Amino acid sequence: MTFNKKSRKISMPKEVTDLGIGNKVLDSDQRIVTKDGKFNIERRGISFFKSFSIYHYLISISWLKFCSLILLVYLLVNIFFAFLYLAGGVENFEGIETNNTFDRFVNEFFFSTQTFTTVGYGRINPVGVYSNIISSIESLTGLLSLALATGLLYGRFSRPVAKIIYSDNAIIAPFNGVNAFQFRIANMKNDHDMIDVETEVILSKEVNNLRKFFNLKLEYRKINFFNASWTINHIINEESPVYGLSEKDLKDSDCEFLILIKGYDNTFAQYVNSRYSYRYDELIWGARFTNIYGRSEDGRGMIELDKISLIEKAELN
Amino acid sequence: MTFNKKSRKISMPKEVTDLGIGNKVLDSDQRIVTKDGKFNIERRGISFFKSFSIYHYLISISWLKFCSLILLVYLLVNIFFAFLYLAGGVENFEGIETNNTFDRFVNEFFFSTQTFTTVGYGRINPVGVYSNIISSIESLTGLLSLALATGLLYGRFSRPVAKIIYSDNAIIAPFNGVNAFQFRIANMKNDHDMIDVETEVILSKEVNNLRKFFNLKLEYRKINFFNASWTINHIINEESPVYGLSEKDLKDSDCEFLILIKGYDNTFAQYVNSRYSYRYDELIWGARFTNIYGRSEDGRGMIELDKISLIEKAELN
Amino acid sequence: MTFNKKSRKISMPKEVTDLGIGNKVLDSDQRIVTKDGKFNIERRGISFFKSFSIYHYLISISWLKFCSLILLVYLLVNIFFAFLYLAGGVENFEGIETNNTFDRFVNEFFFSTQTFTTVGYGRINPVGVYSNIISSIESLTGLLSLALATGLLYGRFSRPVAKIIYSDNAIIAPFNGVNAFQFRIANMKNDHDMIDVETEVILSKEVNNLRKFFNLKLEYRKINFFNASWTINHIINEESPVYGLSEKDLKDSDCEFLILIKGYDNTFAQYVNSRYSYRYDELIWGARFTNIYGRSEDGRGMIELDKISLIEKAELN
Amino acid sequence: MTFNKKSRKISMPKEVTDLGIGNKVLDSDQRIVTKDGKFNIERRGISFFKSFSIYHYLISISWLKFCSLILLVYLLVNIFFAFLYLAGGVENFEGIETNNTFDRFVNEFFFSTQTFTTVGYGRINPVGVYSNIISSIESLTGLLSLALATGLLYGRFSRPVAKIIYSDNAIIAPFNGVNAFQFRIANMKNDHDMIDVETEVILSKEVNNLRKFFNLKLEYRKINFFNASWTINHIINEESPVYGLSEKDLKDSDCEFLILIKGYDNTFAQYVNSRYSYRYDELIWGARFTNIYGRSEDGRGMIELDKISLIEKAELN
Repeated sequence: MTFNKKSRKISMPKEVTDLGIGNKVLDSDQRIVTKDGKFNIERRGISFFKSFSIYHYLISISWLKFCSLILLVYLLVNIFFAFLYLAGGVENFEGIETNNTFDRFVNEFFFSTQTFTTVGYGRINPVGVYSNIISSIESLTGLLSLALATGLLYGRFSRPVAKIIYSDNAIIAPFNGVNAFQFRIANMKNDHDMIDVETEVILSKEVNNLRKFFNLKLEYRKINFFNASWTINHIINEESPVYGLSEKDLKDSDCEFLILIKGYDNTFAQYVNSRYSYRYDELIWGARFTNIYGRSEDGRGMIELDKISLIEKAELN
Repeated sequence: MTFNKKSRKISMPKEVTDLGIGNKVLDSDQRIVTKDGKFNIERRGISFFKSFSIYHYLISISWLKFCSLILLVYLLVNIFFAFLYLAGGVENFEGIETNNTFDRFVNEFFFSTQTFTTVGYGRINPVGVYSNIISSIESLTGLLSLALATGLLYGRFSRPVAKIIYSDNAIIAPFNGVNAFQFRIANMKNDHDMIDVETEVILSKEVNNLRKFFNLKLEYRKINFFNASWTINHIINEESPVYGLSEKDLKDSDCEFLILIKGYDNTFAQYVNSRYSYRYDELIWGARFTNIYGRSEDGRGMIELDKISLIEKAELN
Repeated sequence: MTFNKKSRKISMPKEVTDLGIGNKVLDSDQRIVTKDGKFNIERRGISFFKSFSIYHYLISISWLKFCSLILLVYLLVNIFFAFLYLAGGVENFEGIETNNTFDRFVNEFFFSTQTFTTVGYGRINPVGVYSNIISSIESLTGLLSLALATGLLYGRFSRPVAKIIYSDNAIIAPFNGVNAFQFRIANMKNDHDMIDVETEVILSKEVNNLRKFFNLKLEYRKINFFNASWTINHIINEESPVYGLSEKDLKDSDCEFLILIKGYDNTFAQYVNSRYSYRYDELIWGARFTNIYGRSEDGRGMIELDKISLIEKAELN
Repeated sequence: MTFNKKSRKISMPKEVTDLGIGNKVLDSDQRIVTKDGKFNIERRGISFFKSFSIYHYLISISWLKFCSLILLVYLLVNIFFAFLYLAGGVENFEGIETNNTFDRFVNEFFFSTQTFTTVGYGRINPVGVYSNIISSIESLTGLLSLALATGLLYGRFSRPVAKIIYSDNAIIAPFNGVNAFQFRIANMKNDHDMIDVETEVILSKEVNNLRKFFNLKLEYRKINFFNASWTINHIINEESPVYGLSEKDLKDSDCEFLILIKGYDNTFAQYVNSRYSYRYDELIWGARFTNIYGRSEDGRGMIELDKISLIEKAELN
């Protein structure tokens, strides 16, 4: 924070040498970070079983898929046990008075559901050793499945996810006599206010057929509260790696601005983070974000979150 | 921490430009942070379903509401299944010997409760395929509901919430030859001692019809232990944004002191935080907090937490 | 870390003005921090219900108490429901063939246990509307109790607690030509290795009939790994608040060394901390901790944790 | 960060005096950190019960062991209760029509499983006070076991573990005109991307028959994202404790490079860490890591994780 340090920065904008995604140039229609915040990189050479985590999969799929999967497993487990019971012979059960195989299967399927869920009405019940062994295993399986489902449901609900909305475009805006790179974010959830929110912006730029990465210095890297919205602001002065570049320069060097936002979510009581990126073609030159704060009818503060992407024309410096 | 740095601060108290709640002036009867620590800001333009999180709602409502909701859902689910069973015809069940529709409904309602809770006495039990299918779905629903309830109850109990009591008023007190802005907090819970507790105080002040925000420098920003009480102290010297302001000045500029307290709660083993605010009209000029520490009869330390707000008159400097 | 700063420290050892436990002098037989790490301070003036947290109580009591409590609740709940069933009259149940009140109570008590645990054998089962309503409420209660118990058991097991053993005494040991205040800690659990462990030592000392608190500077405040043992070392040079004090001085000023240890436990995947204190009479002058590291028979490293408190005489400087 | 500080470092590389594992020299065939990241140290003098944590054991054993253990406990519990029921006499049960002790035992074993899992078919059911008491205790035990199993299964799944793959060897590579100590890591799991990943490398070296520990300064200690791979780089300049040492020197002083990697795992939403070590004989002199990044057929980035250990010869400086 002394003069010396700053002057060093001017002559050499800070480069991040290893972002862990290589320096190969991508096709110009490919982005580094996808719109849902994932690195657009293909991982090869590692087996599915080693790289796949079933727990993570089950807590991150949609509710529809999750419920369908539960129903499917329930169906398959009961069909499996019904066949086992069928194999045991009719004398193994009290309450099944038919010798027709299909009827027996239906009865044993429902007996299986009654055992698996431990509802155990008891009209049909096992009398032989074989059916008793199978049903004692099935009821244990049922309980353990319940234990698993409990953990998965809790995992799904308590998984901390930052619900941050990004403005559709980043902009180049006039700011204090120079220009600035800006984008705006909003907190989607009503009660999930966040504290200690930090932002990092990294510029990816093609130089001599290699991708290079540069940290952008922000006016404010961190805010105490993130309740409604925040406009992140990088001032384009001599220190900035985009200083002096034109719209065409950004396009030619395939520029992409990578965003990482971290913060502490009060509801989840955990740190959450969110990633995003803006490519050169999602950048609007000569604009300003429209004010979305106002006063409601009763004199309180008010914010219009649907206008997060609203911009108005502005003359660049 | 050198002289230069300090002198720069004197000429320009640190302003926080973007607190994420805009710069619009509010009605003078509106506060920025409500007494329960929420930002007093209305969020518009985002649909209910996107901004509402059901899990958060269910773990934060009162126990009375939560239990009533459970009972209501239990009632509705069983009425729903009772109608489904009713639709199946009387021959679908063993143990229901009536043809009276109301009596059948009552019987099937209780059969439904026995299935949903998996108690399954079995006097009434399904014999038809239709009733067996419905009841096998209901018992699964029951188990999944139990799984959900388990997660919600655990979520409710283990949700870390800072139980901090604030003094009713902040005060302007004489301190070391100058004056100071002070307020006092106490830890409400007996066994929830906290460590590494940090406080931030931000002053909101109306300047030229715009709200501005200033960080107040505290004598101690952080304490190691927060077992009983802590008096937070901002010394009003030349660096302070309230330096030289009178009671009337604070009123005219609609001053509000926003408080954020963070710390690590040993019982929850998680970081918790608490927000509060004092407005100009909750500020008492010329007072001192009464000592609430003493020695108990057996020579131990003692603190009287009900006297947290107790003050005594003091001459200002 | 410049010469100036150090020289300032020499003239004025850093005092912590507000530890949140007041400055009143305690009886000389009272300590500030008890041997189980709690502040020895009585909290008054706050109602039991506001300051008590039932969840915390239930996850921190001993297993014996916890299990006894569960059994007691189970007994009381079933007695309560048995009385309710008794009130309903004998015609409300199938399977109870007696009119003797005591026999009916016994039968209904066991029916209640079968309903609460949802085992529901069904020999005794409700036939009346009254008994059906009560039993449908009881089985729901049973399920919710199971949900609660699940959360409590998980809470008990996953509650992160630092299992740190402290040496019985702190010592004043010769060190690099001067003397040092030292104590030794060990990690009790085999697999709970900790990382990023930090220690703070605060000296409480009576000055002019007021307790004052001073931070002690440590040779190493933080270590990367805490696998086996660590000797914490405060060098008593001119900067130290105990510099030049004799054994009698410490006694006369009722000195107590408060210890706070924090770290990240790999097994719990959470931050844990531990508090302790040494009073002047737990301090041994002129000693050195015996080395407890060695080489096992197979050439591996070895540590003898039972010798953590072992010291040997040493001449002070 | 001034010239003075650096120059001091040159003359005296930073030594870590107490790593908490002693300074005794180990056998040359023993390593300090084993390949699965544990300290190779024997802990003696503390009783099994104090140092063992059952919860940790149960969530860290393999799934096969865990499931076998559950089955075994299930079997033993039911045998235990079957004997208790057997002791009660045949008149205690309805539905057991045999007087043959073995047949009664079999029947009561299955009755026990039906009670423990709360399936409770009810064909066999307790009619005596004795059998009712035992079965009401067993069904409670069953529920509490379910509660326990739920917690354990959740604990097993949600336990955050860093899945980091290390290159088989560390290398000495030419780098910017000097040489460097390097190793490469990769993130094994597809969706477990990590942020804020930090690395520490400590060199253990035998000096005058004592083990000494030195921190190695890294080119980058911390990276923002750890999605695919990262090459950690220690430049061997005059400040480095390995500066000027030959392959034979490292061998003679039994050098071992201890690695600690920490980061925030987005899926677990928790901090995870991983330990590893490279001994002198796992170090390859004069090599360079082969580039494993490329462009996939569709122009996206691509990484070949199976080639993490791939190196090519390189001339050292």
